[in-house]
Amino acid sequence: MSTTEQRLQDLGIVLPKPLQLPPGVIFPFPWVRIVGTRALISGHGPINPDGSLAQPLGKVGLDVSLEQAYVAARLTGLAILSSLQHKLGSLNRISAWVRIFGMVNSAPGFNQQPAVINGFTDLIIEVFGAEVGAHARSAVGLTELPFNIPVEIEGEVELHPNDA
Amino acid sequence: MSTTEQRLQDLGIVLPKPLQLPPGVIFPFPWVRIVGTRALISGHGPINPDGSLAQPLGKVGLDVSLEQAYVAARLTGLAILSSLQHKLGSLNRISAWVRIFGMVNSAPGFNQQPAVINGFTDLIIEVFGAEVGAHARSAVGLTELPFNIPVEIEGEVELHPNDA
Amino acid sequence: MSTTEQRLQDLGIVLPKPLQLPPGVIFPFPWVRIVGTRALISGHGPINPDGSLAQPLGKVGLDVSLEQAYVAARLTGLAILSSLQHKLGSLNRISAWVRIFGMVNSAPGFNQQPAVINGFTDLIIEVFGAEVGAHARSAVGLTELPFNIPVEIEGEVELHPNDA
Repeated sequence: MSTTEQRLQDLGIVLPKPLQLPPGVIFPFPWVRIVGTRALISGHGPINPDGSLAQPLGKVGLDVSLEQAYVAARLTGLAILSSLQHKLGSLNRISAWVRIFGMVNSAPGFNQQPAVINGFTDLIIEVFGAEVGAHARSAVGLTELPFNIPVEIEGEVELHPNDA
Repeated sequence: MSTTEQRLQDLGIVLPKPLQLPPGVIFPFPWVRIVGTRALISGHGPINPDGSLAQPLGKVGLDVSLEQAYVAARLTGLAILSSLQHKLGSLNRISAWVRIFGMVNSAPGFNQQPAVINGFTDLIIEVFGAEVGAHARSAVGLTELPFNIPVEIEGEVELHPNDA
Repeated sequence: MSTTEQRLQDLGIVLPKPLQLPPGVIFPFPWVRIVGTRALISGHGPINPDGSLAQPLGKVGLDVSLEQAYVAARLTGLAILSSLQHKLGSLNRISAWVRIFGMVNSAPGFNQQPAVINGFTDLIIEVFGAEVGAHARSAVGLTELPFNIPVEIEGEVELHPNDA
């Protein structure tokens, strides 16, 4: 077992199943796209362990509290780790986190987006450590997100060259 | 003629002329920036064959229907292919689509952004096939876009190394 | 002194101190993340020479005029150059600007985002010249930004290979 998967187990973290899309919805793109040693991550939202969309949905600062949104960002991180594991076989192939773009479905006047996306960053640092897990980041307010999810995150990780 | 240009012809697709900017507007940046084997694509909107902004403008879910927005995303894809062809000489230099960020000018409560951006993705898969055309993707709701266009898309493609 | 730092001095440009975060705010990510020859830039906002958030805050087209927003985009550029200089030691290590994503905190109906982000692009071309400074760009309207800043910009630069 690779060290990253062992680390997940030590932390008691179980990754969710892939997102179950609502009936009639087709996503004609992969969750992770590999080009050379780069793995590009499509926009993910928060899901439950069974792959269903996590509640609550809606706008942060109105329907969803800051605390709930922090959890949503962590759940989004778990969904991303699940997609990466499915695509890569093992999370141990990741040599560095690169870039994260954190989007918060924001009610008018809500501007604590960084505190929300910390739910994602804290998870990544917890699992990968400060050096591998470090990433450039933006955390900003979107007016609408698909399916009214409170948080969506996309990004990129770098892979060890021998896996290219 | 390269296979991609032949494919466009077989599909009956004619690429539009470059965007005609409104009077007084200056864009001090290139539509495509090449760095090594990477081609970065600036944010594009939907245009007509003559390079003028395509109608209708406005917010999807209010001024623009889902069906019209799907077409706008496809027109945006044609604008991007035109910019890539101008910069690269031939679309055959593209070895892989990498990442797409799809922005939908969204009316309050509109959250079918993925169904809109499918207009772009369907075009790319049609022209490049499922393997080369695959791309990581986000499709999200923006509150305002330049000139009130309904859709804006930016992204990245990878080039064959011998072209670097 | 490297040619870029000399160029800054010739232009009379003094870079600001790093951003002073509001009390209680923690940013668990670096301003610049280096992976190989790529330097990824986290989302920055406009700051004063002492590192405090620059005024005015708020929505462009309502609280902040187009002219003030252009200045805010330029100040954001100076903040980014400061972060790059801290991380790289010298701005001369930059071989090419790659990609810029310009986000404008937009009041309803404001859609001159490109004219705002020109404040950033004009600065970069001024300092690095048209060839090195060229970058793929999007300039779009966000509904809310952290701390209610009027402009946020993230992006990427390429480094000379011998610095990798």
